[in-house]
Amino acid sequence: MGELRVRSVLVTGANRGIGLGFVQHLLALPNPPEVVFAACRDPKGQRAQELQKLASKHRSLVIVPLEVTDPASIKAAAASVGEHLKGSGLNLLINNAALLKVNTLDTETLKDMSEVYTTNTISPLLLSQAFLPLLKKAAQGSPGSGLSCSKAAIVNISSSAGSIKEVFLWESEQFVSYRCSKAALNMLTRCQSMGYREHGILCVALHPGWVQTEMGNSVGDKPPVTVDASVAGMLKVLSSLSEKDTGTFLDWEGNAVAW
Amino acid sequence: MGELRVRSVLVTGANRGIGLGFVQHLLALPNPPEVVFAACRDPKGQRAQELQKLASKHRSLVIVPLEVTDPASIKAAAASVGEHLKGSGLNLLINNAALLKVNTLDTETLKDMSEVYTTNTISPLLLSQAFLPLLKKAAQGSPGSGLSCSKAAIVNISSSAGSIKEVFLWESEQFVSYRCSKAALNMLTRCQSMGYREHGILCVALHPGWVQTEMGNSVGDKPPVTVDASVAGMLKVLSSLSEKDTGTFLDWEGNAVAW
Repeated sequence: MGELRVRSVLVTGANRGIGLGFVQHLLALPNPPEVVFAACRDPKGQRAQELQKLASKHRSLVIVPLEVTDPASIKAAAASVGEHLKGSGLNLLINNAALLKVNTLDTETLKDMSEVYTTNTISPLLLSQAFLPLLKKAAQGSPGSGLSCSKAAIVNISSSAGSIKEVFLWESEQFVSYRCSKAALNMLTRCQSMGYREHGILCVALHPGWVQTEMGNSVGDKPPVTVDASVAGMLKVLSSLSEKDTGTFLDWEGNAVAW
Repeated sequence: MGELRVRSVLVTGANRGIGLGFVQHLLALPNPPEVVFAACRDPKGQRAQELQKLASKHRSLVIVPLEVTDPASIKAAAASVGEHLKGSGLNLLINNAALLKVNTLDTETLKDMSEVYTTNTISPLLLSQAFLPLLKKAAQGSPGSGLSCSKAAIVNISSSAGSIKEVFLWESEQFVSYRCSKAALNMLTRCQSMGYREHGILCVALHPGWVQTEMGNSVGDKPPVTVDASVAGMLKVLSSLSEKDTGTFLDWEGNAVAW
């Protein structure tokens, strides 16, 4: 258990919501990472102002331009991160960027289904592929056996809405494109856990709770979980993970969520 | 239990493999449907010869041109089926058309992930939307309460490869795009079961077994299940389904498969 200690982290969708929360909490750790890569689509844009402010105060924060649905942009981001790390690896990849379209079963379209899947499921796959050499390097360079987030890990931010067994909150929110993409992301996480175990990389899917973010608010009512509570909870969960937890689906309090 | 009795069925991907097997078995039932719609991409093409031969012998077999990834083609197919049914509904929609790309975790691409998801997950959604009015009509026109395949049902042909819990056969076959698409299809089935229950439509995901088809053979070794055994098994399973089974994931022998 204890506190999460990593040398380097990359967070996608880092300019707001849970992504920005991760960046803030990581920088504020008693033993913060040497470098936090905050990836977002438009680092100089209006919507990245918070991130810019943070970067002006923290030399360890590096903002990386990244369009998660564009393979060329992913490749460029991985190259730039690799250069910055000067031969050391990346400990933690947090695939947080995600898209939600407020549709019902009747109003889903080819376009919405496709866009949501590309951002929520395909991008985490492509990002993990692109950062795999850096994650492997981190795993090889870390002492001790077994898997942990301090060595090397892929963290896919999923959702309990992706639980096929439970289909939570169907009555109020259908969001079929989102649910399907998150169920598929959970499958991807399981596949990654099996494929990357031999490289010393832990893989986990996390449900952040229903959080007070732009996305969380778009769902209706008032989300019960603050960004701070969600992110603090997830970082605590990450610090506690070991070999046996790879390929699991946990919420921000560490409880297992049904597939 | 007993034998499946329906007035009308539509099967996608009906020109070969399991789809063709469904058509053959349905036509050979002691009480066959009044009409079997066999949908395939190119009804006049080389790859639809078996279907053409069957159609020359069975007046109840209607071949419908359908490109399952094209919304306009889906719309046209639904209109043509509606016209043919002359005011009566469609009892059974069997979403069978599917795509498998032989990739590993390392070789999956944006293109392959996207194509496989479009065919295996988005198409069943769009087809169900398009045929919903006809399925509703069949449900309304059938006697008795409760759900059953004899009234109205959507049958999504899934795969045990979509089981997130089990991740069957990972060592020999990774097929991440296929696994993710089938996990998402299972989620879609659950969503459909919840959304369409009020319309009297049963929804189920079926694992056909590892079957001796073009797709089955492409996976390596010799698949253990014949098309005949798989289809006969699935038709028996369908005949036995009732209200309590909507939203479940069953194999061709009627066993529950883990999500």
